[in-house]
This record gives sequence, structure tokens and C-alpha cells, in this order.
Amino acid sequence: MTAEFSTLAEFRALLAEAPGADARALGEAEDRNAQLTKPPGALGRLEEMAVWYAGWRGTARPEIAAPQVIVFAGNHGVTAQGVSAFPAEVTEQMVLNFQHGGAAINQLSKAAGARLDVHALSLETPTADFTTAPAMDEAGVVAALATGWAAVDETSDLLVVGEMGIGNTTSAAAIAHALFSGAAEDWVGRGTGVDDAGLALKARVVRDGVALHGGGDGLATLQALGGRELAAMAGAIARARALRIPVILDGFICTAAAATLEAARPGALDHAIAGHVSAEGAHAALLEKLGKAPVLSLGMRLGEGSGGTLAINILKSAVACHSGMATFAEAGVSDA
Amino acid sequence: MTAEFSTLAEFRALLAEAPGADARALGEAEDRNAQLTKPPGALGRLEEMAVWYAGWRGTARPEIAAPQVIVFAGNHGVTAQGVSAFPAEVTEQMVLNFQHGGAAINQLSKAAGARLDVHALSLETPTADFTTAPAMDEAGVVAALATGWAAVDETSDLLVVGEMGIGNTTSAAAIAHALFSGAAEDWVGRGTGVDDAGLALKARVVRDGVALHGGGDGLATLQALGGRELAAMAGAIARARALRIPVILDGFICTAAAATLEAARPGALDHAIAGHVSAEGAHAALLEKLGKAPVLSLGMRLGEGSGGTLAINILKSAVACHSGMATFAEAGVSDA
Repeated sequence: MTAEFSTLAEFRALLAEAPGADARALGEAEDRNAQLTKPPGALGRLEEMAVWYAGWRGTARPEIAAPQVIVFAGNHGVTAQGVSAFPAEVTEQMVLNFQHGGAAINQLSKAAGARLDVHALSLETPTADFTTAPAMDEAGVVAALATGWAAVDETSDLLVVGEMGIGNTTSAAAIAHALFSGAAEDWVGRGTGVDDAGLALKARVVRDGVALHGGGDGLATLQALGGRELAAMAGAIARARALRIPVILDGFICTAAAATLEAARPGALDHAIAGHVSAEGAHAALLEKLGKAPVLSLGMRLGEGSGGTLAINILKSAVACHSGMATFAEAGVSDA
Repeated sequence: MTAEFSTLAEFRALLAEAPGADARALGEAEDRNAQLTKPPGALGRLEEMAVWYAGWRGTARPEIAAPQVIVFAGNHGVTAQGVSAFPAEVTEQMVLNFQHGGAAINQLSKAAGARLDVHALSLETPTADFTTAPAMDEAGVVAALATGWAAVDETSDLLVVGEMGIGNTTSAAAIAHALFSGAAEDWVGRGTGVDDAGLALKARVVRDGVALHGGGDGLATLQALGGRELAAMAGAIARARALRIPVILDGFICTAAAATLEAARPGALDHAIAGHVSAEGAHAALLEKLGKAPVLSLGMRLGEGSGGTLAINILKSAVACHSGMATFAEAGVSDA
């Protein structure tokens, strides 16, 4: 499909129009949850996850039959600053690995019963080095948002977005620093194999980028400090909201991309939960800023949508309990 | 099958003979893990889970194709002390619910692709009230261990055991208190809907039981303070070890039953991981005593094997990554 926006202002307007959860389905799901054959609250977080999912899908007894995982890949001009331990060629090599089924996300998507799509965004033309210029011009960020927007299948009933992009933890850290202040050091982490000196360099690069481009709203920040794969994730998350498809966020980079939507429009991530908290230093702090408690905490720091996809089966299980269990009345079980 | 023991001494001897993990498969799995197309350690806990699983299955590239969930149900004489908010009839009502497919564990087993078996152990004859007599005599605990032992399918490649038994958090607390000392109050929790007065009563009952029966080894403790479903879980976990079938532990009651094996034979739970930490107060402390870090922490407190079964898909995903991913060489990806 063609995206319904061609400027950031039009995209911003779409965010403002985004639908909320279905209050009636939410209420009915809460009522149903209270009647299921278990002590109240005994399924813990699974209960709130199932009710939340029901609200967004508009039915008290939903099912998850068509989850979609989309991995976006992009290259970053800021790697010229030496912020990554891996060469930029790895982005394209990993895209081929995704396409051939050899990466972690291939196995995880399969284990989650999810469709996996991969979109490489102009890998041959990295974005600009954000320490000297905005990473993208407006047409560039809009095109990347539109790629993400169009990548979401309208018939999906759950979405995970992930990324591959050498250098993109630096971009994510710059976005987090621009949106939530603090010190640059608070938001940088070791990404993939960065040592102490590299960490100090990343902090300097993040500080320089934010000094040059900080102060704009979420979408301006995404344009100046983001990357194409981050913008595409944001576009996909926004499209999912328009379609009332719940989203499971992945790690630090995905969450930073998502945070630009929340900054642009408070509540823009109400249809999203945090799939996991990663080992990348600042992810926990970023989730806290967004008020999102992670479902999983397993020390992962791979990206690719891996943590979000791993959480799909947890949400599926929650929804299966909610929609499949007998009520006390149906089962003839004494209700205390 | 007929169990290979008819006394506790014979069961204890089987524990002593139990096999360890396959060192060669472990080493090969570690080597393979280091070659997969991801930065070292980027899959966090999934990597150690997959390597651990490979060691127990004796192959560097295992798969999980036949997980088995077994729920054991029993009734407890100690309910005469008023320790539970639910009537004992609920045990049998829930067994019927399991058999009819209406409980949480039915939905969770299905979502995990696991076979579910349910064994009700002499529900019409509760165990003795352990504040006045041992819960079981030796023949009784051996019969329950044998039920668990025989319930494990030799062709299963992963096992979760769970339970249903009104009053069994009191039994589990007494076992934990007997095995790990501390104060009785440290080991009692609210179980299913117990109020403050009930909690104080549970502590008193646990203290009385341990005063009467404490000081024996793990299996003597299981006999005196346990229940048939706890002994059956212990028997199944021991059988899984003999068959090198890895186990995912469930919540507080399952873990207390398992702890009696570890107390009887240090290392008896090396083939087991903790699926989750439950909201039942003392579960976290009990796992710490056993040196088991939980995979999930979702505030669940249902029993039935629910938390362990929810973790099956996490382990499956870990093993799928380990065995299905391409190596750097296969994928032509630059290895930093």
C-alpha cells in the first residue's frame, strides 16, 4: 500500500488521530478473567497481558493466529567516527543470513509461529554522520517511515519489529539522550563488542550529536539522530496502532525508535508492551522512562527483534488461557 | 512400567546411581555456540540453557520434539487445621477440569506443544495430618514416588511436573522449613487466598509439624511432611534424571518436592532448571537455597505446572537457535 503521508506534519497528524483500545471489550475481558477457574490474580502478569490484548483487538475472547515479525536494516554514517567494533559490511551479510534462514530471528520467529519479513533500506547509502549533519533530510525520514508503515500486514494480529544496523546503538543512545536528557554516558552501552575506549568515544559522539540537533520533538529527533531502520520501526509501530494491532517492543534500539512516537504524541505506545529488557546498559532506564515493565529479562542483547519475538509465545499463552479456560460455572468448581 | 524400587532405601540407591550430563556433548555444544552468527553471549541466558540441554541429551545439536507435562493431585490431612481458604473438594473438581481441558495448564500445555497427563492419587483418602502423625507411612510414600516414576514417558525429551492439592502450600512450607531451617514464618505464604490470621495459623502448623518430624534426610522429610502429589513429583523428577530427560521446575510446591531429592543426594537436580519464580512468598528464597535462577518472573502463583510449562517455549526457542542457526563460516558473515 501507499503510505497515507508524505511529510512529517502529515505523519504527526496520523499519530494524533490514532484509535485507542476498545473500552467495551476491555471491560468484558476483565469480567471474563474474574470467572476463570483459577484464584483471582493467580496467573499474574499473564492476566493483564490478555486483557490488554483483548482491549486492542476489540473482543473479549481473542486469539493470536497471525503474528508478524519485521526486521529492518540500515547503515549509519556515524560509523565513520569509529563507534562500532564490527565493519558496516556486516549489516548486509546479516540481511543475507536473515534471507537464508540462518539467523537467530529466523529460529525465534519459527518457534513463535510468526511470519518474518526483512526489509533492507538503502544499505549502499548510509545515512549522514549525525555529528556533522542531520542523519536524514525530511524526505529521507518520511520514506523510511513509509517503508515501515507499508510493511505491516493488515491481517496480522500481533507485531514485533526488530533491526540490524552496524552503529545503531549509537543512534539509539543519541535519541534517548535527546529525548530524556541526563548525561550522554547514561545512555551509551557496549553495543556489540565495544571496549572502554570505544564507550568513551560513543559518549562523545552522542554528546556532539545531541548538542548539534537536540531540542526538536520526537520526529525531528528521529530525523536528525536516527537511522532508516529506526524510522521504519517507528512507521510500523504507528501503522500497527492505526490498525489496532498490538506490538511487542524489542530491545534498546527498537525502544528508542518507539520513544520518538511517544515523545511526539503521548500515549502513542499504549498498544505496545516491552518484550524484554536487554543487557544493553541503558535499556532498563529507557523502559522506565516509558513506563513499560519488561516481560522477559534474560540478558539478551542481539537486536533483530529477538527479545520481542521470544515474548510472543508468552503473550500467546496468556491469551490462550484467557480465551480457552473454563469458567467456575462451566467447570463446576467451587469459587471459594 | 513397574518402578525399580519398593523401599525408600532402594529409591535412595537409585538417586546415588543417577547419570550426569554428557561431557563430550557439552563441550561440542559450547564450541558450536561460539561459532553461531551472533556476537558472543548476545543471546544471554538462552545460550547457557541450550548448552545445558545439549549436555543432558548427549548431542551437540539437540531438538525438543516431545515435551511432557504431568500434573499430580493429592489431598492433605493437614487441611483439618484450617490452613486453606478453599474446601478440599476443589482438588477433585480441578482434576475433572484438567481432564475436560478447561484449566490453565491445558491451554499452556497446548501452547507449548506438550503432552499433558493427569494423575489423581487416592483423593478420597487424604494423607495424615502431619501435626499429629507422619503424612505417609513408608509404603505410602514409596507408592507415590512409584506413581511419579512410572508416569514419565521414556520417549519424552523434556519434563514439567505440576500439582493440585488443597493445603499443599502448607506441606511445601513445612518441607522447606525442615530442610533449610530459618523461622516457620519465613516459609509460609498466602497460598490461594489465605488472610493474615490464616498466615499465622499456617506458620504455627508448619512449626508444629517440623518440631514433630524434623531432622530426617530429604526423603524422610518428604514422607513425614509431604503429600502424595509432592512425592509423585519427586519420583518423576528422579526418573527423568535416570533417563537424562531435562526438567523445568514449576513453583513453590514443585520446588519443595524437588528439594527433598537434592537434600537426599546433592546434585540430584542438576538436570533441572527453575521455570519461574512465583508470587508465593518463599519461592524465591527456596530457589536461592537450591542455586537455581528462574527463567521467568511474572507474578504467577497457580501451580498446576503452569510456570514451568510457560517456560517450555523459552527453552524450545533457545534450543532452536542453538541447533538451527548458521555459523559465521556457513553464512559468510565477518566474525569481528
